[in-house]
Amino acid sequence: MIKTLYWEDNSLFLLDQTILPHKIEYVECTTYEDVITAIKTMVVRGAPAIGVSAAYAMALAEIQNIDLDKAGLEIKAARPTAVNLFWAVDQVLEKVNQGQSAVETAIQMHEDDINTNKKIGEYGNTVIDENDTILTHCNAGALACAAYGTALGVIRSAHQHNKNINVICDETRPVLQGARLSVFEMQEENIPVKLIVDGAAGHMMQKGKIDKVVIGADRVAKGGVANKIGSLMVALAAKRYNIPFYVAAPMSTFDFENNIFDITIEQRDKDEVLCIQGNYIAREETRVENPAFDIVESDLITGIITEEGIKKPL
Amino acid sequence: MIKTLYWEDNSLFLLDQTILPHKIEYVECTTYEDVITAIKTMVVRGAPAIGVSAAYAMALAEIQNIDLDKAGLEIKAARPTAVNLFWAVDQVLEKVNQGQSAVETAIQMHEDDINTNKKIGEYGNTVIDENDTILTHCNAGALACAAYGTALGVIRSAHQHNKNINVICDETRPVLQGARLSVFEMQEENIPVKLIVDGAAGHMMQKGKIDKVVIGADRVAKGGVANKIGSLMVALAAKRYNIPFYVAAPMSTFDFENNIFDITIEQRDKDEVLCIQGNYIAREETRVENPAFDIVESDLITGIITEEGIKKPL
Repeated sequence: MIKTLYWEDNSLFLLDQTILPHKIEYVECTTYEDVITAIKTMVVRGAPAIGVSAAYAMALAEIQNIDLDKAGLEIKAARPTAVNLFWAVDQVLEKVNQGQSAVETAIQMHEDDINTNKKIGEYGNTVIDENDTILTHCNAGALACAAYGTALGVIRSAHQHNKNINVICDETRPVLQGARLSVFEMQEENIPVKLIVDGAAGHMMQKGKIDKVVIGADRVAKGGVANKIGSLMVALAAKRYNIPFYVAAPMSTFDFENNIFDITIEQRDKDEVLCIQGNYIAREETRVENPAFDIVESDLITGIITEEGIKKPL
Repeated sequence: MIKTLYWEDNSLFLLDQTILPHKIEYVECTTYEDVITAIKTMVVRGAPAIGVSAAYAMALAEIQNIDLDKAGLEIKAARPTAVNLFWAVDQVLEKVNQGQSAVETAIQMHEDDINTNKKIGEYGNTVIDENDTILTHCNAGALACAAYGTALGVIRSAHQHNKNINVICDETRPVLQGARLSVFEMQEENIPVKLIVDGAAGHMMQKGKIDKVVIGADRVAKGGVANKIGSLMVALAAKRYNIPFYVAAPMSTFDFENNIFDITIEQRDKDEVLCIQGNYIAREETRVENPAFDIVESDLITGIITEEGIKKPL
């Protein structure tokens, strides 16, 4: 399986997810600033992968002899919604205060992420039935994590348990992570997959063509779950047609302090919407709203699949 | 205002909507077969515009000395969901049987369409309030009709009545009629407009940023309305957040014979999804479901704005 990221000779190598599935190239980060740029430009994306990358950014800052508190603040500012980013930086600072090196800590967190995802997959497998067609939105796959994936980890696990399953991927505009990344991951593992436009998910559910929905999360907090824009509309359609709607996410995604409606929803550049792979779909000066995430309210969620079992939403 | 279509010297000229807003070019149709090709390839699209084009196709068949019953059957087979196509062909056949020429009939139907849309706009204006932000999906605008538009006709009418309104357009994948056509129409008339991805509509409603939804229809029948894929999910979000959801459509869109769930939902080519303006977003061999329309169930619809007033769904 293609690696999302790896650490070698004091450098972090990140698979460039902006050019997948057309090209497979790695970006080498030798400074923590390189990692911040990679997070901002979505070379690396997905809450767990951002968390592990942030830990390695702290490792690089240590090697650069930068004050880790200062570097940590800059790393946390790279993207505002994924709570794993803040959690990872704080984890490294805590371990360093206890005398462990940031490099060792990051390597340990990387391994932990893989184990966490495998546990999520095992718990998730218990809610997937033989012959299920599972809809997913965006990419909560191996590419969103150090490996294996959360939502796609559940699907991988069911497939490895020899269940006959089909997957439907929303393309997930504007950045097309569903089309470019989730479809690619499923094809690489020979799991039967079909692509649809985001607007078609409701129709598929109305027609009885979807049995379960499993998505990832950027943050779980009181009142609901923040995830990629479009998740809310998928959840509303699932509710209408009585289709179980699961979120798969590690405990590091849980924010027990804030209400989900109080968090910052990142607004991204308008060209993500206006310009698809170099081609404008409307005039360049067109005004755009481009929220990167939305909030799925708790009453729409059947369960949250974590490494500690299946939990109720907060 | 740019003309969607016009009749000159025994030819039908269709504005090529596949290349808007980048280029403004007309396709000249000198035979009814040319019109069928234009309907299939979406050079002309939108239920009312398809209806008027079909009437002119019958006019061309008359000029070609083709049996009109035979030509009518072929024209009706061009696209399966928009009922206006069948209605327009039958209208021409009826008038021809009464002794009128197909050319005269088509010209009359063209004028009628414009008047119908203006009446829809007048009735629709009564449900639009000062300072409303109105969401629309796909393009039920002048470009979907002979002129003026149905859903965008309502917006035009409110604007002409000097109401301060804002418009939000869903981009409407896969063919991007919202981004390419509706945004363009609003910009041409200096009506404030913003573009969003289809997945963002729910978020905008949850945040209280949408006051009304107005969309068009390809068919109104018992049980609901067929319209561009994605309309159902917009309606579900509007229901959740108590936002009035209107359909604007001429009476020629009403099908009093069938249940909406019994009609054929056109499945279009997978490359509409896979290939955006020449660039593949996933591997070429990726499997796709590409339904062109979905069904908005009657309980989700506040009212249907017609040239005869605002009606309850069937």
